[in-house]
Amino acid sequence: MKNHQFAIKPTSIKDEINELKMIHFLEPNDLNQQPRKLMLKLISRAFLEHQNAASNIKENIASLLATEDTNALEYLSKSNRPLNKIIFYNIALQLLRFKLTFDFKINQSQTFMKKSRLPIVNTSSDILSNQDVIKAWYLLLNTHTKFGQTYIDTIAAHGYYQQFNDLKKPLIFNGKTQPVFDTNQLIREVVYIEAPLDTDHDGKRDLLKADIVRPKESNQIKVPVLYTASPYNQGVNDQLSDQLTHQVNVKLKHKTPNHYQYQDIESHGNQSKNIPKPRKIKGESKYPTQSFSREMGYTLNNYFLSRGFAIVYAAGIGTKDSEGLRTTGDDLETISAKSIIEWLDNRRIAFTNKTDHIQVKAWWSNQHIAMTGRSYLGTLQTAVATTGVDGLKTCLSEAAISSWYDYYRDNGLVVAPGGFQGEDCDVLADETFSRFQKAGDYQHVKDQWKKQLDSITKHQDRLTGNYNQFWDARNYLKDVSHIKADIVMVHGLNDWNVKPRNVEHLWNALRNVPVQKKLFLHQGPHIYINNFQSLDFTDMMNLWLTNKLLDVDNDANQLIPDVTIQDNVKPQTWHTYQDWSNAKNALSLQIDNQFKLSDHQNGIKPMQFNDYLVPDIFNKYTKHYNKWYKDLMGNNDSPMSNNRLVFKTNPLKHDHYIDGKVHIKINAASSQNVGLLSFMLVDYGEATRLTHTPQLLSRNAIEAGYLWKRDDLKEFKLQKHPTPFKKITEGHINMQNRHNSYQVDELKPHQFYNVELDLQPTFYHLPAGRQLGLIVYASDMAMTIRGNQKIQYSIDPTKTIIHIPLWK
Amino acid sequence: MKNHQFAIKPTSIKDEINELKMIHFLEPNDLNQQPRKLMLKLISRAFLEHQNAASNIKENIASLLATEDTNALEYLSKSNRPLNKIIFYNIALQLLRFKLTFDFKINQSQTFMKKSRLPIVNTSSDILSNQDVIKAWYLLLNTHTKFGQTYIDTIAAHGYYQQFNDLKKPLIFNGKTQPVFDTNQLIREVVYIEAPLDTDHDGKRDLLKADIVRPKESNQIKVPVLYTASPYNQGVNDQLSDQLTHQVNVKLKHKTPNHYQYQDIESHGNQSKNIPKPRKIKGESKYPTQSFSREMGYTLNNYFLSRGFAIVYAAGIGTKDSEGLRTTGDDLETISAKSIIEWLDNRRIAFTNKTDHIQVKAWWSNQHIAMTGRSYLGTLQTAVATTGVDGLKTCLSEAAISSWYDYYRDNGLVVAPGGFQGEDCDVLADETFSRFQKAGDYQHVKDQWKKQLDSITKHQDRLTGNYNQFWDARNYLKDVSHIKADIVMVHGLNDWNVKPRNVEHLWNALRNVPVQKKLFLHQGPHIYINNFQSLDFTDMMNLWLTNKLLDVDNDANQLIPDVTIQDNVKPQTWHTYQDWSNAKNALSLQIDNQFKLSDHQNGIKPMQFNDYLVPDIFNKYTKHYNKWYKDLMGNNDSPMSNNRLVFKTNPLKHDHYIDGKVHIKINAASSQNVGLLSFMLVDYGEATRLTHTPQLLSRNAIEAGYLWKRDDLKEFKLQKHPTPFKKITEGHINMQNRHNSYQVDELKPHQFYNVELDLQPTFYHLPAGRQLGLIVYASDMAMTIRGNQKIQYSIDPTKTIIHIPLWK
Repeated sequence: MKNHQFAIKPTSIKDEINELKMIHFLEPNDLNQQPRKLMLKLISRAFLEHQNAASNIKENIASLLATEDTNALEYLSKSNRPLNKIIFYNIALQLLRFKLTFDFKINQSQTFMKKSRLPIVNTSSDILSNQDVIKAWYLLLNTHTKFGQTYIDTIAAHGYYQQFNDLKKPLIFNGKTQPVFDTNQLIREVVYIEAPLDTDHDGKRDLLKADIVRPKESNQIKVPVLYTASPYNQGVNDQLSDQLTHQVNVKLKHKTPNHYQYQDIESHGNQSKNIPKPRKIKGESKYPTQSFSREMGYTLNNYFLSRGFAIVYAAGIGTKDSEGLRTTGDDLETISAKSIIEWLDNRRIAFTNKTDHIQVKAWWSNQHIAMTGRSYLGTLQTAVATTGVDGLKTCLSEAAISSWYDYYRDNGLVVAPGGFQGEDCDVLADETFSRFQKAGDYQHVKDQWKKQLDSITKHQDRLTGNYNQFWDARNYLKDVSHIKADIVMVHGLNDWNVKPRNVEHLWNALRNVPVQKKLFLHQGPHIYINNFQSLDFTDMMNLWLTNKLLDVDNDANQLIPDVTIQDNVKPQTWHTYQDWSNAKNALSLQIDNQFKLSDHQNGIKPMQFNDYLVPDIFNKYTKHYNKWYKDLMGNNDSPMSNNRLVFKTNPLKHDHYIDGKVHIKINAASSQNVGLLSFMLVDYGEATRLTHTPQLLSRNAIEAGYLWKRDDLKEFKLQKHPTPFKKITEGHINMQNRHNSYQVDELKPHQFYNVELDLQPTFYHLPAGRQLGLIVYASDMAMTIRGNQKIQYSIDPTKTIIHIPLWK
Repeated sequence: MKNHQFAIKPTSIKDEINELKMIHFLEPNDLNQQPRKLMLKLISRAFLEHQNAASNIKENIASLLATEDTNALEYLSKSNRPLNKIIFYNIALQLLRFKLTFDFKINQSQTFMKKSRLPIVNTSSDILSNQDVIKAWYLLLNTHTKFGQTYIDTIAAHGYYQQFNDLKKPLIFNGKTQPVFDTNQLIREVVYIEAPLDTDHDGKRDLLKADIVRPKESNQIKVPVLYTASPYNQGVNDQLSDQLTHQVNVKLKHKTPNHYQYQDIESHGNQSKNIPKPRKIKGESKYPTQSFSREMGYTLNNYFLSRGFAIVYAAGIGTKDSEGLRTTGDDLETISAKSIIEWLDNRRIAFTNKTDHIQVKAWWSNQHIAMTGRSYLGTLQTAVATTGVDGLKTCLSEAAISSWYDYYRDNGLVVAPGGFQGEDCDVLADETFSRFQKAGDYQHVKDQWKKQLDSITKHQDRLTGNYNQFWDARNYLKDVSHIKADIVMVHGLNDWNVKPRNVEHLWNALRNVPVQKKLFLHQGPHIYINNFQSLDFTDMMNLWLTNKLLDVDNDANQLIPDVTIQDNVKPQTWHTYQDWSNAKNALSLQIDNQFKLSDHQNGIKPMQFNDYLVPDIFNKYTKHYNKWYKDLMGNNDSPMSNNRLVFKTNPLKHDHYIDGKVHIKINAASSQNVGLLSFMLVDYGEATRLTHTPQLLSRNAIEAGYLWKRDDLKEFKLQKHPTPFKKITEGHINMQNRHNSYQVDELKPHQFYNVELDLQPTFYHLPAGRQLGLIVYASDMAMTIRGNQKIQYSIDPTKTIIHIPLWK
């Protein structure tokens, strides 16, 4: 185990004493207490699940060992030996739930802590004074246990803060808000917010359902709000979207050249000018009249419920119990998502139902709102943030799309989100159109919906794959300058669903926007990272939101690194940086003796590869992507060996760190008047690499509060067996989109053209001894359309350059 | 989907009306209401999450379709068309959460219901009268939704019973107790029960920790108790047990013949006569002084918490926070588990902690106790039941061991629980000895524990594999006649961990014991079955426990079938029987032209096979059991082809149903003075078979109550691809244990002996066209010791008979 905690706020001894008094760990006369006695008192107070029953607590303390042969109760209460750091941490590690014998040996507590990066108190002497014990205890409360939570969170989950039941307001300890709110008494309410939209053209503004979960205490105090805009949250129509999923075994078609400039395809928004008038308000109710009993279980939201935040879920236009139609990513959907914030900020109307026009207000909201969630949920955060809406203080945007073209297309090609071949905007629209699930409601909008869906299918234009007005209307990057909310971005460097380009574009576009921004890049695919053992992500988000939504001055901006990137070589290792994808150094590789075809030809003459596969093989690959990946990257005898070119460097003499977008310049020809090129950068070399996904360490080990939700503790581990290669990144381009994704160029058979593109950005540590490989191929079984056409591609190796940005 | 509901209690219209009034679905004047209006009222009342807000409820009803083009609100409130069954069930199926278009077509509701085995109300006319609507609604409330729960349970999970918040006593509807207890206000307490044991020899009786979760209402009323004795519940020592796991690649050793009779190895119990005196009681406390915040999440227990049952978890001697040492299966462990019941039945003392001697009573217990849980948890139920202890009314014993010899041994051989090669009683003892986890406590018993563990290791006797005093002390079957509790048994016919013999022995031993007994045999391995879509297991357990623990006369014994067995051919299909493994019919197969070696020799001369495998193959098999199974059962070119004999019948002309224990008589010789024989019965024939484990249908779909725990809905499905064979059952024997498992016989090399054994019992449907196969082999990679000795085995086919009990 390796611990990385950034959210421990350095605190003066004076403040430490005050805070410990505030959370009832210290009483005034403890400051004169003998160190051993003080430690005994502190531990006793941590065992409050024993309801202050002295003997039960003592039994528990006696079950901890202080030395090889003396238990903690005996040592601290009876011995006259002094209290030194070894003893303190012998006991402390057991409190942090590390196992004696197996995790650490008694008297080697500090060695284990250093190795595990657990913080050790800084004292002038090895023998602890009263104040040293206070400092050490304060630090211990903020130190992570074996199960990835602070010790104070752990004892809170065992009932420590039950003594604050009557507090009824936030309690801040070490800059972070504490779980002192009673999650057994949450209030669950439904409201219908009237959006300035009429997407289903029924002549009435669209009412949008919002599910609210808020602490009972918010009847007395105003509370901050976490808002998750999730189109999935009212259910999905898997069967509808399965039916609509597009055939991808279709031929790549020649496109008629054009001379489009950006203004030719620029979108100015779909926002209708003729929005119906607001409904007439016929009355007001303090409380909504509808409740619910099931909410989405987003772990981070649950964590903040016990800390006094209200949580709001809304699925938006076209979802079950709301009005309107799905538009998937355009400004109408942004307005839909934004309307919820406006209501929470007291600037928009909500009703108790769709019939009575009885208004209901968010009087419990402190008008400090953050948005949370991953994927589409993160995407809508970016969307809403670019409107600059008031009230939205920050976004915790995970694995978010920043431009939908970068999700469903690439350089003039239809390119699927990894694992979802044939998906497109229309498929997603139909999948999330959960109004379908209420047959009586669906009946009224069936025809409108068919029209809308047909329109999406038409304008997304799978035929050309070009960027057009449809996609420009779904590009949030155009409006990044309007962002006023501080942004936390989280993305997987191996996320081939929402590809890393999405976060990189946003990160770079935000560079000069005057908001605070933080970036976390992990080694996972399309996942959340708030359940890792090695990183205090949740604590950082607490620090961040305590600062942004509760206005507590807690140094969140200084303590949370600007860029935190997970190491791809060593498990449980995170590095911090000042920036990403802004490298000053680079490496340029040409195809020569250093970077050559893997079968040891060097590159002088044009080299060829085919796209066509015999039907048996083709069909197998379309069903077993892993087999195809393996054959593409390895195995010279495989059916893929004529369908690709593999270039490899010699084994690297020293470590390399790729930082950002690898850029390819290639000179290539197609044997037909159509062509697509795919590029994959590969890390070659037998090595034990990280698992693809975080592995379960301990089921339900993470506790969001006392008698409240739990989550599994996970972490990437080293795989059991070495592997010969790993994909670093990739990219695809239609050879007719050599200038950009909307201008179509001519492509003549057998004529050589310069083609340039950026691969998906990354941060990759390539250790010495490995070989960097580039694979050039055409159809990508997992992502592009797969025409299985009899096309031969040629490249001129003398005119091919790979530009690799390097961290150092 | 196919629904099997046994727990719907047929009820007279008079009682239906009374019950519906009691749960507030009917008001007096509803009995004169027009049928359409009545149905509208009933549906309205089902939407109480809308807090009686008329418009919100109406919006919801309007979202249901009654006909192709009319919604339910419109149809029921405005139309003057009569209410017929088609309309009723069009709407009802939507309430049951089936999807229009995809699950069923409007106006084909009844066809869908018949196909899915959903119950339809019996009426004299298709046009429903007022009383018909009442009958239909009553039945609907008791009908399963798409997600495997009754409709009343579903709306209860959405808050329906919130209106009974002040009831504070059980509410019985259709014979089953309803979720009217507030799980947000559960009381969690810890007590220390003083067992009449001193297993750690410290001169004091062992105190055993029990974790209690009980509804707050039990402060006013006495409640029934579900008690789960789980040695795992305070944590396990994986690392300790991994270290202790035995090497199984050891040679089978010759055993010196003996002439043991049963009395030579009979155990008379380890129960010490010199138990220390009880502690002196120094006071009494109404409430315990210790609480806790994490309990084991056993789904069935959670379900009953919302229904007003108290749940008690206790891990027993030698576990964390308890005293004593683990003994694994003997009468001391039984006494340990039984002590908890005695306290719950007011006949044993418990204290608030281990220090103060302050007594605390289970004054909230109605002294009607059931035990629950699977595997070791089920085993301890059988153990305790055989003591005939008062207070224990019933056991819901799932996948339970009935004799530990049948768990770790077989016919004079060490035979592992499937998947746990090298495990034994000592390994399990060390794994569950969770006192180890509290270092300060462990320190005191370290030496005693080492002694105890060494003694288990010695007496379990892996050298001979014989049944001895150690195993006789762990054989609950000896005391089945003492059982006074009614017993529900659940077991997987593919459970190779706790093998089916365990339940079959218990079932047969109970046949003449005057208690009620029910048996469920499913197609799974070692799993729970309370989350299946196709069977109302949970409802049946409700009916059962409402009868046994709340003394409600609800026909539980009549309604729940005696034997319920899941079909192994068709998914979602359950059949009921009067008995199991008591077949009157049988089929005897000899090795002849009908039942012959698979390579078409017929059997006249002795036939041979070897046990030895070349090291490469052997090592591979020891790591990849699935590969070995495949090679054993199939693949004539595999390395196993000389290490087995495969006999197959001709394709069967009609369906066969194996019912119970297949008995093998064989005449065999070993080339050495040691020998073991394994037998596997196999279903041969390309067929699409059930998945090995239930597959996820819907995450968190099953709700144990309002705002309470959830569980995943699962079901066996047909596998995607056909398979050529499936293991039906198996058995193993040491050739030196030809008489029984304790008498050791001589074995001379090359001499032929008659060997007889029962294979593990089963119930297996072998459809026409399949071939029944018998594989004879020696070492079993997954279960027996694996000496890889150069032994050749011979069998005389003329003297080999397979006796197959048949259901019909």
